[in-house]
Amino acid sequence: MALSRQPLKGMRQLLPGEKRVEDYVTGKLADAGRAYGFEEYEAPVLEPLELFTAKSGSELAAEQSYNFVDKGGRELIMRPELTPSLARMVAASGELIYPVRWMSFPVCYRYERPQRGRVREFMQFNLDILGVDGLEADLDVFLVLRRIMTSLGATGEQYTISYSSRKLAATVLEKAGLDAEEMTLAWSVIDKRDKMKPEDWENWAGKQLEGIAGADSVMRFASCDDLGSDWLTGIAGDTPAYLELAGFSSMLESAGVAEARFEACVVRGLDYYTGIVFELMDTGGENRRAICGGGRYDDLVGLFGGQRVSGVGFGLGLLTLQLFLDTYGLVPGSVSRSHPADLFLAVFSEEQRPFAVRLAERLRNEGVSVEMDITGKNVSKQIRTADRKSIRYMAVIGPDEVESGTFTLKEMATGAETPCLESRVAETVRE
Amino acid sequence: MALSRQPLKGMRQLLPGEKRVEDYVTGKLADAGRAYGFEEYEAPVLEPLELFTAKSGSELAAEQSYNFVDKGGRELIMRPELTPSLARMVAASGELIYPVRWMSFPVCYRYERPQRGRVREFMQFNLDILGVDGLEADLDVFLVLRRIMTSLGATGEQYTISYSSRKLAATVLEKAGLDAEEMTLAWSVIDKRDKMKPEDWENWAGKQLEGIAGADSVMRFASCDDLGSDWLTGIAGDTPAYLELAGFSSMLESAGVAEARFEACVVRGLDYYTGIVFELMDTGGENRRAICGGGRYDDLVGLFGGQRVSGVGFGLGLLTLQLFLDTYGLVPGSVSRSHPADLFLAVFSEEQRPFAVRLAERLRNEGVSVEMDITGKNVSKQIRTADRKSIRYMAVIGPDEVESGTFTLKEMATGAETPCLESRVAETVRE
Repeated sequence: MALSRQPLKGMRQLLPGEKRVEDYVTGKLADAGRAYGFEEYEAPVLEPLELFTAKSGSELAAEQSYNFVDKGGRELIMRPELTPSLARMVAASGELIYPVRWMSFPVCYRYERPQRGRVREFMQFNLDILGVDGLEADLDVFLVLRRIMTSLGATGEQYTISYSSRKLAATVLEKAGLDAEEMTLAWSVIDKRDKMKPEDWENWAGKQLEGIAGADSVMRFASCDDLGSDWLTGIAGDTPAYLELAGFSSMLESAGVAEARFEACVVRGLDYYTGIVFELMDTGGENRRAICGGGRYDDLVGLFGGQRVSGVGFGLGLLTLQLFLDTYGLVPGSVSRSHPADLFLAVFSEEQRPFAVRLAERLRNEGVSVEMDITGKNVSKQIRTADRKSIRYMAVIGPDEVESGTFTLKEMATGAETPCLESRVAETVRE
Repeated sequence: MALSRQPLKGMRQLLPGEKRVEDYVTGKLADAGRAYGFEEYEAPVLEPLELFTAKSGSELAAEQSYNFVDKGGRELIMRPELTPSLARMVAASGELIYPVRWMSFPVCYRYERPQRGRVREFMQFNLDILGVDGLEADLDVFLVLRRIMTSLGATGEQYTISYSSRKLAATVLEKAGLDAEEMTLAWSVIDKRDKMKPEDWENWAGKQLEGIAGADSVMRFASCDDLGSDWLTGIAGDTPAYLELAGFSSMLESAGVAEARFEACVVRGLDYYTGIVFELMDTGGENRRAICGGGRYDDLVGLFGGQRVSGVGFGLGLLTLQLFLDTYGLVPGSVSRSHPADLFLAVFSEEQRPFAVRLAERLRNEGVSVEMDITGKNVSKQIRTADRKSIRYMAVIGPDEVESGTFTLKEMATGAETPCLESRVAETVRE
């Protein structure tokens, strides 16, 4: 029986045209990071399971992941996200110069049912600042996010960066009189606020919180999107958590980050967040999954022993970002079509092949990307291949060319022909 | 108890300086591929186990790999190599324009004891041509390999590309009278020829082949490195396999690939090779593992049903290549040290911060990579950070700078100071 032609469901497989689109996007992401001095690093895909059960959340680590026992009896996991590995690297490196500004493009794995915007093997862009307690670090991270979106051609009407604060949420819930157990429940109820229709959520949340004294406050907080509202300032306006978040809001305003807005219901799913949390969303209706999620995690590096190192950063999903870009037509069509070769060398007959091989090598030495025929088919078929591959220039090497050392460069799109010496080919192609 | 600070043994973890070295090397590899019109693609890390048991060899797939059963009961493997996934992609794509010239940088996994040049999670560079039966494709692959090594600064004395032919080996063993079972044994004996000391191999091989009529021919063939030798031409000189290989040898000579040489003992471990096989080795004594191995596999794509598509290509290990480069001092020291930021902006006090944030954003808009202080420490500490990070330029934003709109750019290495207007910063930094 023949082997299956399909990869496993939800796996990442990119043909060259698709890979060029991904490269275009990752290029913009890396450029945005570099503009702020971020450096790339790499962490392993395979990790000890305990690295993720510790602080990512047990559901993610145990149920929604690829985990298994290896031949040596170790409990392993294919990373569902990058941050715990980053925290370990930072904890293990004595020689780092703080603030650490690092970015990476990890491929991650989740065992979940594939659907729009969600697959099992996916690439992320992670960007983090470590070693800074002040919200100046959080601001820098927001600035990078805005630069990413701007460099990809997105406008402030197409996306928002919603933020809230884990500290503020905890403060409000505490003031409302919730105990620890009730708070865990409230947390998950708040988290669902922007994932359901408002009226559906009202009904559902009301039932979930039935019997809890502070239920009303939980529901009011979840729907709050105004830091200056009387209710919020009344309940928490003089608390450190509120004052910190209000200060952050001013910093964003002063820096002109108009895309950012407070939304109390932003919680994010990972257990390790301790401060500001945020997500970047499409404002339109087509893409309901966050393109990016992140926040501050000041206790994660400390889990590895040694000194406490605070951190703030995000993970951005390449797939959700690409869906967003497709929705708004932001990837130029030429990106997927551009072929790496500048010049196709057709070979008239086998007699000219050794000459053509050496010529092609010399042209490559001068920086021209040359695809030469290796099929030995007739010249018209060779030219058809060059045309279908959208290679920009073409030249035929026949007996005359070998003898004279001059070639006719043909621009495939226009049909324009330029006779030129070998020594001028590189220059002409580059023009 | 604190979590371990070490990744699992043999996993791939790169700090920014190490990542820059890898990027330098992968950049050269991709450039070499692009010079011949190769396009990048991506295949999944997770694959069905049967994809590799089919033709890679059962030892590799079952014993030397990370394989497991997922939550849905599927037998999965973390790919130990890329070629079977490539063959599947080609088989599944109806729209490809042949010859297909594809390259990729897969991370692969093997469950083996880590040692010099061998780890459990590793990046490869794979490059393949599909759809061409003639050895012109094999020649192109050799030319890319030579270009890779040349572009990295290696000389022809530092490495060799040894090649042989599976067809020739089979022909010789058949002529020597070996049956199928004896041939399998002979194959593994030949394969060990260049992995042991000659005299050790002689003894060991003699014992392995005891009682086989053609043992002498096997041993002679294994030690043969001259295509024109009387013995070889006598036994196989008029066979298609010999004539093909001799023709390939002439093509290499005509193209000036002096690094390539015939060595009958090159076999390569993968079951799917059908023709020319080759490996790239350090000629020195320090690195005994092949840097690159490859060959022709004309029956692999056919395993997925549909049309037969021939292929030739190689996998090159980034780790073995880096060990080679280290041995010969071929990675410039500046590669690991170069920091992405052009300019460090120190902030005199919190009063100037909003101004500095906006200034930094404008400079980034003009293409300057700016790392701005976010620590709020005193200026001398900020400058010390910039210095330790080896950022090239520095400027302090204090009250005078805010008022006048002019800055003093300081080149950190020389201490040279240049006063300049905001509008000239980008230009000055780029000079």
